[in-house]
Amino acid sequence: MALIVHKYGGTSMGSTERIRNVAKRVAKWARAGHQMVVVPSAMSGETNRLLALAKELAPSKTTDAYGRELDMLAATGEQASSALLAIALQAEGLESVSYAGWQVPIRTDSAYTKARIASIDDTRVRVELVAGKVVIVTGFQGLDELGNITTLGRGGSDTSAVAVAAAMKADECLIYTDVDGVYTTDPRVVPEARRLHTVSFEEMLEMASMGSKVLQIRSVEFAGKYKVKLRVLSSFTPWDIDINIEAASGTLITFEEDQHMEQAIISGIAFSREEAKISVLGVPDKPGIAYQILGAVADANIDVDVIIQNISRDGKTDFSFTVNRTDYAKTVDLLKDKVLPSLGAQEVVGDTKICKVSIVGIGMRSHVGVASKMFRVLSEEGINIQMISTSEIKTSVVIDEKYMELAVRALHKAFELEQVPV
Amino acid sequence: MALIVHKYGGTSMGSTERIRNVAKRVAKWARAGHQMVVVPSAMSGETNRLLALAKELAPSKTTDAYGRELDMLAATGEQASSALLAIALQAEGLESVSYAGWQVPIRTDSAYTKARIASIDDTRVRVELVAGKVVIVTGFQGLDELGNITTLGRGGSDTSAVAVAAAMKADECLIYTDVDGVYTTDPRVVPEARRLHTVSFEEMLEMASMGSKVLQIRSVEFAGKYKVKLRVLSSFTPWDIDINIEAASGTLITFEEDQHMEQAIISGIAFSREEAKISVLGVPDKPGIAYQILGAVADANIDVDVIIQNISRDGKTDFSFTVNRTDYAKTVDLLKDKVLPSLGAQEVVGDTKICKVSIVGIGMRSHVGVASKMFRVLSEEGINIQMISTSEIKTSVVIDEKYMELAVRALHKAFELEQVPV
Repeated sequence: MALIVHKYGGTSMGSTERIRNVAKRVAKWARAGHQMVVVPSAMSGETNRLLALAKELAPSKTTDAYGRELDMLAATGEQASSALLAIALQAEGLESVSYAGWQVPIRTDSAYTKARIASIDDTRVRVELVAGKVVIVTGFQGLDELGNITTLGRGGSDTSAVAVAAAMKADECLIYTDVDGVYTTDPRVVPEARRLHTVSFEEMLEMASMGSKVLQIRSVEFAGKYKVKLRVLSSFTPWDIDINIEAASGTLITFEEDQHMEQAIISGIAFSREEAKISVLGVPDKPGIAYQILGAVADANIDVDVIIQNISRDGKTDFSFTVNRTDYAKTVDLLKDKVLPSLGAQEVVGDTKICKVSIVGIGMRSHVGVASKMFRVLSEEGINIQMISTSEIKTSVVIDEKYMELAVRALHKAFELEQVPV
Repeated sequence: MALIVHKYGGTSMGSTERIRNVAKRVAKWARAGHQMVVVPSAMSGETNRLLALAKELAPSKTTDAYGRELDMLAATGEQASSALLAIALQAEGLESVSYAGWQVPIRTDSAYTKARIASIDDTRVRVELVAGKVVIVTGFQGLDELGNITTLGRGGSDTSAVAVAAAMKADECLIYTDVDGVYTTDPRVVPEARRLHTVSFEEMLEMASMGSKVLQIRSVEFAGKYKVKLRVLSSFTPWDIDINIEAASGTLITFEEDQHMEQAIISGIAFSREEAKISVLGVPDKPGIAYQILGAVADANIDVDVIIQNISRDGKTDFSFTVNRTDYAKTVDLLKDKVLPSLGAQEVVGDTKICKVSIVGIGMRSHVGVASKMFRVLSEEGINIQMISTSEIKTSVVIDEKYMELAVRALHKAFELEQVPV
């Protein structure tokens, strides 16, 4: 008998018919002898519906001003879906009980709409499990020190599930979603993309941050920190398949290096069209310039991704970085108005028609020549590389966005990702 | 400066436009210098939508089996509308904060779907009021001793508002609804029906229990017990009328007898088509028969309204009572199967095509002849009276339902209810 956490996304909870299927799946696991904790998202569309009502009432204000009330509002979506799932499980003949985040409680800080989990008291949940019940815990939400409801931000239910699994030392946390695992790249771009049976925590982190969108990045960090055995799988496979087959499906996220000994050097190719690049040209090369430029950007709450500074020539250097495309104009204005004059730099230039393509693989650590192979492949396709950034297990390039699909397909083929590694 | 509680029903909260109007009205009261606590219902249709989802998932079970989860589910409706109202008030430039029942907390027993309020801790609400905020408290819900969410049953938001007003010793509790007060009878039946400026607590109780549906009966009991100044008024009058005119509109529910010195003997006429009558004929007249009959009915959770037992003849008596029409068949079956054999009674007969018409008035206490005037009026219209039941301030008759409108109109005219009492 194991302690298992299931997490179901909004699409999986999207109708009473689907909730019934979730209940049947959970019932199957419970009847196989497992202690079950289930973390559901709100029914798909519900969170957007609620936030749209708030937007209608306060069109001119930022969400920050209403953070507390937005969380109060949005948290109802998961509370309702959790109660519905408990009812569906009872209709299946199982004893079941739902707990809102504040009832567990899942304690968080007070950063409304993007709170972070501080601690989880699992006493009540354990008591219910020992009493033989399936316990539903609302995803996405918690309770701050002052007794206010908080939410964890978009995708926060993944984090809730992993955090509950960590707090309870669950044997496995299964994230049921609308894809059946993590792929070598997006199958819509490369039809030959292959589902990975396992992917390392570090690779998953790099894939998630690159927009693979299978799991919220914070949930993966959490799983890594607390060594939660995490599996991503589809809730749209029939619920009545053999439980052993289901338990081995999807993609397992692993944390031990030795499991990767026989794996391919590269696990996948991530890409993102959501960034823009900005360069500050002719910056006097003296200590503190990076801080002068990026400090101002950070103060304006703009996230920076790739950062590049090359060697200087004639005492001047060029400083480049990428930001989210929606922050592009704001960032350029900020640099021109506030930074350029005091910095004595030449000018600010930029481009929004770019994309970032990354090869990710834990094997890169011990294999030289992976990055150079990537550059060769792109060169053979006639694709000019605008920026390069590398980490231990990832090499990213910024290129013209019109070449994105071409680059991803060529790299997928060159690294033979469609083949199962021997 | 007074402490005022406003309560808004589901229709008043039915759209973002209406919520905005509620916010403007509350803002007007707050800007006039009052400390404001607002108790909203869920947006109209929301509670039904949620319960319909539950019904789809568990079609064959009674709501009792899922009580805890139904409350968890239904309580989200008020939490969402409360947060939306707080946001709308903030958009109006007022500081505002919403509290769910469990956050106040409003403590109740554990009778899911029909819980009763045990106590209210107003500390947090007072702190927010002193800080200059409008405080929104979710209606309809509370927290039991074990930390579970409970709901108070249909119309429970009225009770929440009155209970909050009682706990905080509010100067007045205004119930905003879709009617502009309590009428002498339903204006759809009698176009001349007149709005009462005041109605006594006892009269209101009798009117509410007769299906006037303006206020939940328990809220009126609560107001009486704790001497809450309670006013029923319409949220559909323009929000920008003069606050003094608004504060004096609607119907005030009063508790001091002397306020009625100049009032009419009869305040109103209530009626209900929702009942059915049942008679057990030829019951041996010995101690314990009432308990034998009604004990079995109560054990089956069937509510009984009018109960009549006339004097016996030849050692036998007839025992009659009314139940809700939906419980009629169940009650007759129960009596035939379980009660009749052991009781040695002759037979069970009944009729669903009946109605109950009542005249209500605190003046009846000191004026003889009111009941006999009622019987004379009905007699003059050729209406046969099937059952009679009287209390200190009410006389009810059961008649054929086809005469209901005729009876109500004739009585309204005979007691001159269309005229303001001198």
